[in-house]
Amino acid sequence: MALSGSPAIRETDWIRRYIAPLARSAEADDLRDDAAFAELNGLHALSTDMLVEGRHFRPEDPLDTVGQKLVRVTVSDLIAKGALPSRVLLSIAWPGHRPEAAFAALMAGIGTDLAQFHIALIGGDTVGTDGPLCLNLIGIGTAAGRQLVRRSGAVAGHWVVVSGTIGAGGLGLAAAQAGRSDSFAAHYRVPALAPLSAARLVSDHASASLDVSDGLLIDAARLAEVSGVGLEIDLAAVPLARPGDLVEDILAQCTAGDDYQILMCIPPGTDLPGFRRIGRVVPGAGLTLHHRGQSVPLPQRLGFEHRT
Amino acid sequence: MALSGSPAIRETDWIRRYIAPLARSAEADDLRDDAAFAELNGLHALSTDMLVEGRHFRPEDPLDTVGQKLVRVTVSDLIAKGALPSRVLLSIAWPGHRPEAAFAALMAGIGTDLAQFHIALIGGDTVGTDGPLCLNLIGIGTAAGRQLVRRSGAVAGHWVVVSGTIGAGGLGLAAAQAGRSDSFAAHYRVPALAPLSAARLVSDHASASLDVSDGLLIDAARLAEVSGVGLEIDLAAVPLARPGDLVEDILAQCTAGDDYQILMCIPPGTDLPGFRRIGRVVPGAGLTLHHRGQSVPLPQRLGFEHRT
Repeated sequence: MALSGSPAIRETDWIRRYIAPLARSAEADDLRDDAAFAELNGLHALSTDMLVEGRHFRPEDPLDTVGQKLVRVTVSDLIAKGALPSRVLLSIAWPGHRPEAAFAALMAGIGTDLAQFHIALIGGDTVGTDGPLCLNLIGIGTAAGRQLVRRSGAVAGHWVVVSGTIGAGGLGLAAAQAGRSDSFAAHYRVPALAPLSAARLVSDHASASLDVSDGLLIDAARLAEVSGVGLEIDLAAVPLARPGDLVEDILAQCTAGDDYQILMCIPPGTDLPGFRRIGRVVPGAGLTLHHRGQSVPLPQRLGFEHRT
Repeated sequence: MALSGSPAIRETDWIRRYIAPLARSAEADDLRDDAAFAELNGLHALSTDMLVEGRHFRPEDPLDTVGQKLVRVTVSDLIAKGALPSRVLLSIAWPGHRPEAAFAALMAGIGTDLAQFHIALIGGDTVGTDGPLCLNLIGIGTAAGRQLVRRSGAVAGHWVVVSGTIGAGGLGLAAAQAGRSDSFAAHYRVPALAPLSAARLVSDHASASLDVSDGLLIDAARLAEVSGVGLEIDLAAVPLARPGDLVEDILAQCTAGDDYQILMCIPPGTDLPGFRRIGRVVPGAGLTLHHRGQSVPLPQRLGFEHRT
């Protein structure tokens, strides 16, 4: 920190002007201290997500939408664990060449979504960087219902269900890159999540759950692996962002990622609003696909191997 | 995340090889999930610190020492609040050009200090970056004694005390930049902290407390400001890393920062091991300096205005 060279007084001003107004809970103490003090009782889910300019968003993306995406990535992680997010801590490495208006836009986007999801900003750190904008958000939540849910508890015989639709993330990236401004591009910028109320359904019903961020197929394969079971998925049953019956088209949407929907396993016969049954848990290992009674070989690429 | 281009399988391997072995608590679930699950009961202190290559450490600094510094910056924040650190979550934006051995060194340094301070790594996120290495650590701790302590509670009449010595950070940066390898350069790389046992003394005795990271004088001025009191400091009483009686020399060490010692206010007459009395809290506002009975004007620069 002694390396910082000239003192950057403007960032202290920016914290006061744009961040402190978002941190109104007593726990944050107006961000005047080195730590937040929070009374926490019971089992908590804690997630941490880092977004880097050029990797997770494009340099030209409006920063208010980047701020919303940052909050949503974190909210999605927590909902899929059956948790309702309550608090976040925010760290920002800010490139000196970006203007104050960009900082204001970033914080406006973060503020909009913290308010929308009823989350308190309780702490943070703002530093300078000579590199790309780098954001880190820590999310804290508690069980929305009877428990928090891991990826690893899937039980043979359970149904595999998914919320919302699959494929909007990949279609959105393509639309944004092509300069289109349709609903898919909007999802790329500010992903639509499963509703907060889904956290309660996960918490009360799921044996295993995760959010679909790297692609439905790869995330399903990971859930199967850590649970020590097999998963059978009926491709014709997957609710698609762009409906169609061509296997190639379905597979493209099931391997694209950035969906931020919930994939979970629940006791058979359970019908939950907002979720659609797409398969079942079986003894054994690995992922098996079929489509209208026909077996479909696994594509070589199931999704993003690691989100770097 | 869909922007990541080619999947970087090596980072998944690295997480398994170097990070997961450090995350052995059940709460971490071997880092296989999107969130840690932790049973937290009572009042907690939560801090977040970001370190960026080129700003908070030099590109040529050995990454094991950068890892140790990351942990210590967080531990120092928490000790100064009267908290014993128990858990951390780690986020890493890793530059693709750095080799696996560097990643291994970073995690070895982090692992060494997590073990030394008895802290559990319970979660994290590893992403790629085209820019400088960027690290973020969230620290969680609980009161070591009867309470957690803010910067804002200083009471007129209380003593101002400081732990250890002041000035090693500035002398260390100069030594490191000059290529020397003395004890000051060692402190620059891996700062010596107040002992964990100091957290109990802060918790049981302090009316206000912070860790000296930006410079003794600027941090004292901030404590005075948020507490709504004045602070009188006797420069001759400050325990210096390089002892001396020249006011200019004392002021240089009291404005250099990176000390990671504790500055706190305690009831008069309290003698605490490891702490030295350097002044007193007075009614009014601002910082007043004296030296051997003479008033000393405030230097124009009290320390780092903001650590960017």
